[in-house]
Amino acid sequence: MGEIMKIVIDSFGGDHGVGEIARAIVKVLETHKDIELIVTGNKNSLEQELAALNFSSDRLTIIHTTEYVTNDDSPVTAIREKKDSSLVRAFDILKENDDVKGLLSLGSTGAVLSGGFMKIGRIRGISRPALCPALPTITGGNVYIMDCGANMDCKPENLCDFAVMGKAYLENVIGIKNPRIALLSVGTEPHKGNVLVHDVYGSLEGMDINFVGNMEARDLLSGKYDLVVCDGFSGNVLLKSTEGAILSLLSILKNKIKSRTLSKIGYVFMKKTFDELRGIMDYNNHPGAVFIGCKKLIAKAHGSSKYISIAKTIELLYDMDKVDLVGKIENSMKAKEN
Amino acid sequence: MGEIMKIVIDSFGGDHGVGEIARAIVKVLETHKDIELIVTGNKNSLEQELAALNFSSDRLTIIHTTEYVTNDDSPVTAIREKKDSSLVRAFDILKENDDVKGLLSLGSTGAVLSGGFMKIGRIRGISRPALCPALPTITGGNVYIMDCGANMDCKPENLCDFAVMGKAYLENVIGIKNPRIALLSVGTEPHKGNVLVHDVYGSLEGMDINFVGNMEARDLLSGKYDLVVCDGFSGNVLLKSTEGAILSLLSILKNKIKSRTLSKIGYVFMKKTFDELRGIMDYNNHPGAVFIGCKKLIAKAHGSSKYISIAKTIELLYDMDKVDLVGKIENSMKAKEN
Repeated sequence: MGEIMKIVIDSFGGDHGVGEIARAIVKVLETHKDIELIVTGNKNSLEQELAALNFSSDRLTIIHTTEYVTNDDSPVTAIREKKDSSLVRAFDILKENDDVKGLLSLGSTGAVLSGGFMKIGRIRGISRPALCPALPTITGGNVYIMDCGANMDCKPENLCDFAVMGKAYLENVIGIKNPRIALLSVGTEPHKGNVLVHDVYGSLEGMDINFVGNMEARDLLSGKYDLVVCDGFSGNVLLKSTEGAILSLLSILKNKIKSRTLSKIGYVFMKKTFDELRGIMDYNNHPGAVFIGCKKLIAKAHGSSKYISIAKTIELLYDMDKVDLVGKIENSMKAKEN
Repeated sequence: MGEIMKIVIDSFGGDHGVGEIARAIVKVLETHKDIELIVTGNKNSLEQELAALNFSSDRLTIIHTTEYVTNDDSPVTAIREKKDSSLVRAFDILKENDDVKGLLSLGSTGAVLSGGFMKIGRIRGISRPALCPALPTITGGNVYIMDCGANMDCKPENLCDFAVMGKAYLENVIGIKNPRIALLSVGTEPHKGNVLVHDVYGSLEGMDINFVGNMEARDLLSGKYDLVVCDGFSGNVLLKSTEGAILSLLSILKNKIKSRTLSKIGYVFMKKTFDELRGIMDYNNHPGAVFIGCKKLIAKAHGSSKYISIAKTIELLYDMDKVDLVGKIENSMKAKEN
């Protein structure tokens, strides 16, 4: 067995309380004997949940904290001032201990990003770290979006860095050789797009990546692309409108089925198909988004995540450390400089 | 019966050829005795299609043209140089005849927009005309997006103008009193968004509109908003990712149903529900997008439109003229100046 890997978890911010975090902790520690977890938050609540699960482990440390960073807090102010919050303490533990490799939070995305910038800092040469979630495609794989909300306004060099980091992540952690990287635009033709797209297109063409040109938002789930690079505002719109459209369609379908007797009968026969579909689209079967580009590993799970998704996100941090993703990105940036 | 309204149609650019245009012409002229149509394009083909439909009318004029503007043409160059193209001739007819009120094309969106800018010009006070399509919501209504692709990079004053024009359009043409207008962003909180969103938020709050704050892309189809204002790049991403996600989901569903016998049986019972759903989502049951802000009325139907959608788009131009939308927008802009 290899070296023990330590990961710190901010236990605040989940919509379902700390119960799901506790279950995720149990799952990860039982299946990975080389992971050690440090958890910040309300010690009492966490211990109660773990006791209810009959779980104890010497690879688990709980650090009691007295404050919380919420979505209403200004991210920068919260990181500066809420020194005994579960999030800031988690970042301090990540920062101060060489053997703590990664951090997971379900809390305020803005605060997690600010913590990354302010407490951990960027990898040398990376202009902007970025948030990189995955969505399932119609061909059974995943498509990754980068940036998806960390950087609202971007310059061309930022998108070039996203491509470098995304390539390193997909090749080394996800296992996609020579990933197909596209630029989000309003049409596939190179002349289509806004100023940012025009300015960055040529640079992406000149890079040592498999750049396949512009992607229209319509084709996100087509399976034709592995990674889409874009500014964080557009990436967020792309991700959330896709998720929203799918949820809206499923909701219309459900209401229509309920309103018609024949359809209700039909539903009985199709239940397995619908369950499978819901499974593919369910956040809870997928890990959260990774925040790539800081000197240490950071991940943000959805506030509504259940324990399976939380455990998968912890395992993703573990996989990122195993392949030394930070080192790989550092090397890519050095190669680019030369 | 009121005055005759003349509309010019560029018959090139439809994926299904001129047959669908011919059927749309028949439908419109048969149901609206006060509409006169002028059609540019290949006279022979059109006459053949109309003869096959046993149709002739003295309210139809066909103008033979010899060139075409395609998606591969640079829009600005095409408008300048392809003087005998069906699109440029249509714009010239719209420009030179006071009694021709509107133009419809199924062709290159970029060229239609350029034609509007270059041949027709903006309404006094409007900084940028914008493209405004509609999408069906889960509550049975529609949500309108403006801009959706005419202006890739926008300034705050452009979005304010979109709100004024969108309000005039929704109130007078669509019949939505005091429409709920939202600003596209990455969260509902006023502090969330990119520089453009931050800069325009306060201006929208100060305007004589029902501004309901930021909208997350996830909630586009929720039925909580009537109009979403945004830059044309984000609006295009919003529209196309929503359409793409819905088509992707329906395609997955279809494949899954086919792969399982029980599901196939279930499908028989649910067919009516699925057909209804497909009907709601089908482009062909909805009119195309209107391009608002020029001195005359312009609409762009989807290249894949069938005759029902084309006829609905012509009727939309008719409705816009009936309420004098251009005059209404002029008045709104004058009121804003004072």
